[in-house]
Amino acid sequence: MDAALSGKTIAILGTGLLGASIGLALRQRGHRGTILGVGRRRKTLDEAQALGAIDEGLLEVAPAVARADLAILAVPLSGFEALFAAVAAAEHEGLILTDVGSTKASVLAQAQAHLRYPERFVGAHPMAGSEKQGPEAAQADLFVGKPCILTPQTNTDPGALALVESFWAALGMKLLRMDAAEHDRQTALTSHLPHTAAVMLMHVAMARGGWDVASTGFTSTTRLASSNPPMRADIMMANRAALLEALDAMDLQMVSLRGLLQAGDEAALVQWLEQARDRRDQWLADAPGA
Amino acid sequence: MDAALSGKTIAILGTGLLGASIGLALRQRGHRGTILGVGRRRKTLDEAQALGAIDEGLLEVAPAVARADLAILAVPLSGFEALFAAVAAAEHEGLILTDVGSTKASVLAQAQAHLRYPERFVGAHPMAGSEKQGPEAAQADLFVGKPCILTPQTNTDPGALALVESFWAALGMKLLRMDAAEHDRQTALTSHLPHTAAVMLMHVAMARGGWDVASTGFTSTTRLASSNPPMRADIMMANRAALLEALDAMDLQMVSLRGLLQAGDEAALVQWLEQARDRRDQWLADAPGA
Repeated sequence: MDAALSGKTIAILGTGLLGASIGLALRQRGHRGTILGVGRRRKTLDEAQALGAIDEGLLEVAPAVARADLAILAVPLSGFEALFAAVAAAEHEGLILTDVGSTKASVLAQAQAHLRYPERFVGAHPMAGSEKQGPEAAQADLFVGKPCILTPQTNTDPGALALVESFWAALGMKLLRMDAAEHDRQTALTSHLPHTAAVMLMHVAMARGGWDVASTGFTSTTRLASSNPPMRADIMMANRAALLEALDAMDLQMVSLRGLLQAGDEAALVQWLEQARDRRDQWLADAPGA
Repeated sequence: MDAALSGKTIAILGTGLLGASIGLALRQRGHRGTILGVGRRRKTLDEAQALGAIDEGLLEVAPAVARADLAILAVPLSGFEALFAAVAAAEHEGLILTDVGSTKASVLAQAQAHLRYPERFVGAHPMAGSEKQGPEAAQADLFVGKPCILTPQTNTDPGALALVESFWAALGMKLLRMDAAEHDRQTALTSHLPHTAAVMLMHVAMARGGWDVASTGFTSTTRLASSNPPMRADIMMANRAALLEALDAMDLQMVSLRGLLQAGDEAALVQWLEQARDRRDQWLADAPGA
């Protein structure tokens, strides 16, 4: 465990799958400070505590934040606005903040609007997750080797950035700094667009059929359609502008493909398929964890 | 092994992954008749023979067909036209034919055009495969529990249909009869459209980026983009009309999604996502092999 984190009191605001996994990972990696968990239901907090993910569970944000050196916002995106307001009520000069939100521009805007010291909030998107939910699905190694995007701004406090980087690195993540808007643009292209494509493919089959011949290819291409609907709707709404641009990019591909099919140029079609296959093979070789 | 197949000489025309897997499966399931393999390269035939997938390898179609009771066309779709012509040159009254082609209307039209006894050809689409190629990737259990669509026509010989059904059932497949046009329409919706969506998602990322944040969701949604390009281009060209209709259906979904996002109606978005998730969960429960 990094010396910078030694003995620090860490408050995990939201003890679902991600929050509880953070607690388990901190413990497994030797964190000796207190780990507080905040949740809306006593049962979830008790589960997280029984698993060893937190030392103490609180139903209120303020008393946890008041004691914390570092607090992590680990709730669904739709809960951020209220959570920032609750954090602000107990904010103190010694507090540093980070989060797990899947979109970043909207979260930074909320931090700016609510916090007294927004320069001590360092936005993060730990790219780890699971289709499962709740503390019982938590895993201490959930973050190991996965990328964590950090979106510091020009006014971010250097000490806050250093501590937050130590924190995510301590969980075994590979850190990457990126502008918040660029993060949102990229996730729209390779995360939110694939998710919506999976859902649209399901709706095509629901409207037009094809079930008798649906097989393993359909299963993998539509896998993301089984993701949690409210969580996904939150992400889509928070990143709406970038997702609409990604849909425009998909439209251009639809037009290209239609042109290739209508022209009946099989050589051009093979080339179009080869370009995608080669790029995918290269990407898998470069990113073996993906 | 079914009594109807007992002692029959079976010619596998094309000893790649599918052809060699057929031979291995026949042997493993106790077929006692001769298994002939036909291929264009001696090396591939020798590999198939060394694996025990065929008893004898021939470089010419005619002598194999002349000896066979049942012949299976197991080459890529682009090779069907030439293969039907070669089969026709050695066709005899005792010969029954089936195939492994992924589209059916074009294959049936070719059978009708070339064969002297097209009523003895029973189109089949065994829904089993692999991203790998060649006899070395063959598996005796490739077909077990998978669906096999048969597309008999009104003039199909009942004896031919019975033998072909015995054959695919003997490999452990679940048989399903379907009209050829309906087969092609359904595969366009839940097989060829998902494949092209995977390729289009790759091209979107190639044009617009997103690689820094691409993760496991991108991997599974684009998995089909790693499929063999010439084989896929063959399928897309052979099933072009149905694929264009499937792209129209996808366009309608793009319009719906854009409308939901622009309206900003999160409840409607959640419902749209829930419908797809619920249908997918139901489908996975109904088709546990998928």
